[in-house]
Amino acid sequence: MVERIVRQVALEYLGRGSSKGNVSELVVQTSSRHMHVCREDMDVLFGPGAELTFDRPLFQEGNFAAKESVTIVGPRSRIISNLRILGPMRKQSQVELAFTDAIMLGFNDLPIRLSGDIKGTPGAIIIGPKGVVELKEGVIRAAIHAHMSPAEAAHFGVKQGELMKLRVGGPSGVTFNNVHVRIDPTSRLNIHMDTDEANACGLHLTKDVELFK
Amino acid sequence: MVERIVRQVALEYLGRGSSKGNVSELVVQTSSRHMHVCREDMDVLFGPGAELTFDRPLFQEGNFAAKESVTIVGPRSRIISNLRILGPMRKQSQVELAFTDAIMLGFNDLPIRLSGDIKGTPGAIIIGPKGVVELKEGVIRAAIHAHMSPAEAAHFGVKQGELMKLRVGGPSGVTFNNVHVRIDPTSRLNIHMDTDEANACGLHLTKDVELFK
Repeated sequence: MVERIVRQVALEYLGRGSSKGNVSELVVQTSSRHMHVCREDMDVLFGPGAELTFDRPLFQEGNFAAKESVTIVGPRSRIISNLRILGPMRKQSQVELAFTDAIMLGFNDLPIRLSGDIKGTPGAIIIGPKGVVELKEGVIRAAIHAHMSPAEAAHFGVKQGELMKLRVGGPSGVTFNNVHVRIDPTSRLNIHMDTDEANACGLHLTKDVELFK
Repeated sequence: MVERIVRQVALEYLGRGSSKGNVSELVVQTSSRHMHVCREDMDVLFGPGAELTFDRPLFQEGNFAAKESVTIVGPRSRIISNLRILGPMRKQSQVELAFTDAIMLGFNDLPIRLSGDIKGTPGAIIIGPKGVVELKEGVIRAAIHAHMSPAEAAHFGVKQGELMKLRVGGPSGVTFNNVHVRIDPTSRLNIHMDTDEANACGLHLTKDVELFK
């Protein structure tokens, strides 16, 4: 777990690929399993009025890894502890797992969703230091996605919700064919994949990455 | 772990893709972490003269999952127990891990190799019911590969050691660009990927697979 976080941090500020005109350098990041919490669940898990404690910044402006973590209990009564919370708080709580994590916990058919699209997804028991929350839904595998600014989207000729391809070179050599485009004025170009995807393509072994339509 | 094995078994006999002429149906299999043992290490781990016990057949003729399993201790003194042994015995012991397993155990730069090519790879402590072996080398991540007969290789127009591509459709949508060709007269067409690769591409979610040059 510590190793995963170390790897994530290490990858976070590694520029990959090269700049092109008004497009930022392509930064591909590994997103380890984590949780987003809503105000109401935060109150239960960490006590009424508790706030997330800043630990380190994430690539996208305003996002951060919090010092707080929780324990998730899956349908097989197996647990993953030290599930890190990412801030800021959101309207809905959500847990993002790789399939490897999901299978271990007993989620055999975890839906692949974009962040925030949690309707009809499985729930889980979440244990914090001050209380327990039963999430009715919100456990997903996050679909691989590319954050970008409107200018970057224009450069690639893509629109919100379209799919692009990400080729990762190196010894494994994998192309992800369904990279979801997420455009926001506050975003900088970067790609989020989960630990299964990063491990499958050996992301730590190569700087040869290419995003294309 | 049980879940992984169940998934492996379930995938093992699922035909994926469709038959073309003299080429077998494309069977894509997930290979969970496992070990191959040599006679000498078998003697130490399970007692002098011990034999592997057949548990279930694997897709390639003569290969089988044994009932025997061992515990592997990695460089961080963390362990994975119930590491299944695959038979028959081989000339050299070898452990095949996904990167997720490797990172958990503390192998941060596990080499990606074809089975049998273990020179210069890390070792590990292996614990069996009757003794302990210190492997000097042999821990690898197996490169994704396609077993095929000479006739099947001729159909695809590929030679031993060449690379092919495997496209896996479905919601994840991944193309593996470096699928190693392994030709043997006793082989039937099938592809082995590890659990990271299977989880990255959501292999259990789709039957849309295509192998091409």
